[in-house]
Amino acid sequence: MSGDILLTPGPTPLPPQVREALGRPIIHHRTSQYRSLFRRVLQRMQAVMQTAQPVVCLTSSGTGAMEASVVNLLSPGDEAIVVLGGKFGERWQEVCAAYGIRAAPVPVAYGEAVDPERAASILRAHPKAKAMFATLCETSTGGVPDIQALAAVTRASRAVLVVDAISGLLADECQTDAWGVDVLVTGSQKGLMLPPGLAFLSLSERAWALVNEAKTPRFYTDLRGYRKALADDDTPFTSAVSLVVALDEALTLILQEGVPKVLQRCGLMAQATRSGVEAMGLRLFAQRPSNGVTAIRVPEGIDGKSLAKLMYDRSHVMIAGGQGEMAGKVVRIAHMGHIGPGDILAGLAALEGALVALGHEVAAGTGVQAARAMLESIVHSP
Amino acid sequence: MSGDILLTPGPTPLPPQVREALGRPIIHHRTSQYRSLFRRVLQRMQAVMQTAQPVVCLTSSGTGAMEASVVNLLSPGDEAIVVLGGKFGERWQEVCAAYGIRAAPVPVAYGEAVDPERAASILRAHPKAKAMFATLCETSTGGVPDIQALAAVTRASRAVLVVDAISGLLADECQTDAWGVDVLVTGSQKGLMLPPGLAFLSLSERAWALVNEAKTPRFYTDLRGYRKALADDDTPFTSAVSLVVALDEALTLILQEGVPKVLQRCGLMAQATRSGVEAMGLRLFAQRPSNGVTAIRVPEGIDGKSLAKLMYDRSHVMIAGGQGEMAGKVVRIAHMGHIGPGDILAGLAALEGALVALGHEVAAGTGVQAARAMLESIVHSP
Repeated sequence: MSGDILLTPGPTPLPPQVREALGRPIIHHRTSQYRSLFRRVLQRMQAVMQTAQPVVCLTSSGTGAMEASVVNLLSPGDEAIVVLGGKFGERWQEVCAAYGIRAAPVPVAYGEAVDPERAASILRAHPKAKAMFATLCETSTGGVPDIQALAAVTRASRAVLVVDAISGLLADECQTDAWGVDVLVTGSQKGLMLPPGLAFLSLSERAWALVNEAKTPRFYTDLRGYRKALADDDTPFTSAVSLVVALDEALTLILQEGVPKVLQRCGLMAQATRSGVEAMGLRLFAQRPSNGVTAIRVPEGIDGKSLAKLMYDRSHVMIAGGQGEMAGKVVRIAHMGHIGPGDILAGLAALEGALVALGHEVAAGTGVQAARAMLESIVHSP
Repeated sequence: MSGDILLTPGPTPLPPQVREALGRPIIHHRTSQYRSLFRRVLQRMQAVMQTAQPVVCLTSSGTGAMEASVVNLLSPGDEAIVVLGGKFGERWQEVCAAYGIRAAPVPVAYGEAVDPERAASILRAHPKAKAMFATLCETSTGGVPDIQALAAVTRASRAVLVVDAISGLLADECQTDAWGVDVLVTGSQKGLMLPPGLAFLSLSERAWALVNEAKTPRFYTDLRGYRKALADDDTPFTSAVSLVVALDEALTLILQEGVPKVLQRCGLMAQATRSGVEAMGLRLFAQRPSNGVTAIRVPEGIDGKSLAKLMYDRSHVMIAGGQGEMAGKVVRIAHMGHIGPGDILAGLAALEGALVALGHEVAAGTGVQAARAMLESIVHSP
C-alpha cells in the first residue's frame, strides 16, 4: 500500500529516479542506444562489485546466478566445500546436490560466525575440492562471515571462492579482487535498489578457466555464451530491458555518492539499528552482524510472526520474520539501499509499539532515542 | 527515443497502464496482498493461454522456460522430435543437444510450412520419442505451422507436444487444451505487452507425469518446486515483482477486450500489413504467415539492414532485420500487443520512403492506401 515503510531485506524501496526509469517507454535491445547503455551499466557494476573482471548479467532471481556458478564451474562428481549457517548457505548445498556435486559442509550454527581455521581444515581434508561456496550476508540470520579470511584460506588451496553477495553487496564490505574472491554473485533487489529480476556474476581468470572445463550440462545459464555476447555489449537471450534501464539510474545514484560512502552509511544505519534494539532490551541474533540487515531475537513468549504483523497493521511498517527453522524466533529489519534514517526511526518506534501491545515491557522511547543520536550524523543521501 | 514507433517482434510497446504499474513503489512478495495478486494473475493467464491447467511463472527470458520444458520432461539419452524452420526451432534443437537429448529433426526450409504428415512419419520412425517440440510463431521467418495438425499427430503417439508460443501468444490462435498441446511456453514482452523478464508454462497431466520421472538435473527451473509453491500462491525463488504487478494491468486490458477479439484484431492488422506490403510490389517470406509479425523479402540489390536503419533514421520507425542466416534478406514488422493501426500505417509509409531512397521504385502511397481500408474496420482497442 502507498505510504508503507518497507524494511525488508529485498525487495528494498525504489528511489524515485528508478521508478521513473521503470515507467519509461520500452526500448529495443538490439540497438546502438541500448548497447551503449548496457556497456555503461556493466562497467559501473565492476566498480560496485569491486572487480576489474567482466560482469555478466542474467535475467533471473539471484538463485539463477547461484546455479550458474555451480553448473559453470563444476562437473558431476566434483568435490566442493559449502559454508553453512543459514538458509542461503544451505541453498548452495541444495544446488550442489541437484547437480551431483559432492559438497562437504563447513557446519556453522545459526547466528554464529564461521571459524576460518575450521574452513581451512575441511579444505585440507578435501584437497580435490574445486570450489568453496560462501555467503557475504546470510540474510536469514543477519550474519556476515569473515570473507577476507575465507579468501585467504581458499587461496592456499586449489579451490576458487564463490561468494553469494545477493543481499550483502553495497552493505557489507567485500573487496572482490583485493581479497581474492573468485566469483561474486549478486541480485538487483537489495543494495542496488531495483525490483527483483536481474542477477550478476563476476569471475576471476581462475574461475573462467573452470568454466571452460566444466562438464555439467547448461544452456540458459551457460556463461560461455554470455561472455561471447559481451564483445557486442549484448546477451545471448533477451535481457529484462526495463530493469537494465532502471539500473543505469540506480548506478548513477550509487556512484555519485561513492561506494565507500554507501558502505559507511549502511554501517551507521546498522549501528543505529543495533543500538536502538539493544536499548530496548532485545538481543541481536548474529554474532558478527551484517550492515545490511539486523536479525533480532524475539523475546520469550512472543511469536515473531505476530510481532511483524502487528507492526504492519498498526504502523504500516513492514519488516521480515524468520525463515525456515527460525520462523517465529527472529524478526529482521533491513537498512540497505534506499532505506533512510527516518525509516529506521519509524521501524524502531513501530517495534516498540508492537512489543508493548504484546505485553513486553519497554521503557518508552529508549530505542528511538538511542538510534537517533547516531543517525543524526548521517548526511542524507539518495 | 521518445516519439519512436516500435514495430519489433519483442519487446513490443507498453500501454500507459503498464508503464504506470511498473513505476509504482515496490511491494513485498511474501504478503497476502502480493499473494492474492499473484493468484489472480496466474488464473487470468489460464484464460490467455487457453488452458485449465495451472500456469507456472519463471523469472527469466522465454528461453529459460524453453529450457525448463526440456529439463523437466526428459532424461539424458531420451529421444525427442524437433520441428525446425527458423532460429527458434533450432533453439529447441540446441537446448536438447545441451542436455544430451537425442532430438530427431523435422527439417523445414525457412519460410515454408511444416508438413504434418512428415512430422507424423518421423514420429512413427521414433516410437520412443517422449516429446515433440514446435514453435507457434517462428519469429525469425514470420511463419506459423499448423499446430492443431501437429497436436493431432502427436496424440497418436506416446510423445507430448511442447509449443514455444513466446511470440505467438495472443496473435496466432493456439487452443492449448482443445487441440491437445501438452506444454505451452510463453514470455512477457510480446502479446502480453510487458517488458521482458517473465516466462510462463502450462503443462497437461501427461506432461506433469513426465516431470516426476525426468532425471535431468535442475534447480532454478525445477517445475516440481514451482508447482508446490503454487499451493501458497508463491514461487520458490523471488519473482520479478514489478513485472507481475504490471502484468495484472496488462491482463485487465486483454480480458476486457477478450482473447477472441485480441486475436481478431491482430489478424486484421496482419492482413492490412500484408496487403500494404504486397501492394508495394514486395513479397512475403512465410508460406503460412503469422498474425503477430510479417517477414518481408527485401528486393534484390537492397540490404535489409540498411533498409531498417534508414526507416529509423528518417522516420523514427523501428522494425526488425533478419536473424542468423536471414540477416539482410528479410525485414520484419510486428503487429501484436499494443501496436495499433496508426503504427502500421506509419510503418508502411516509412518503408516506402526508405525503399525509394534506396532506389527501389514504389508507386507513391500504394502500400498505405491498401492497408488503410482494412485498418479502418478495426475499432481501436488497448
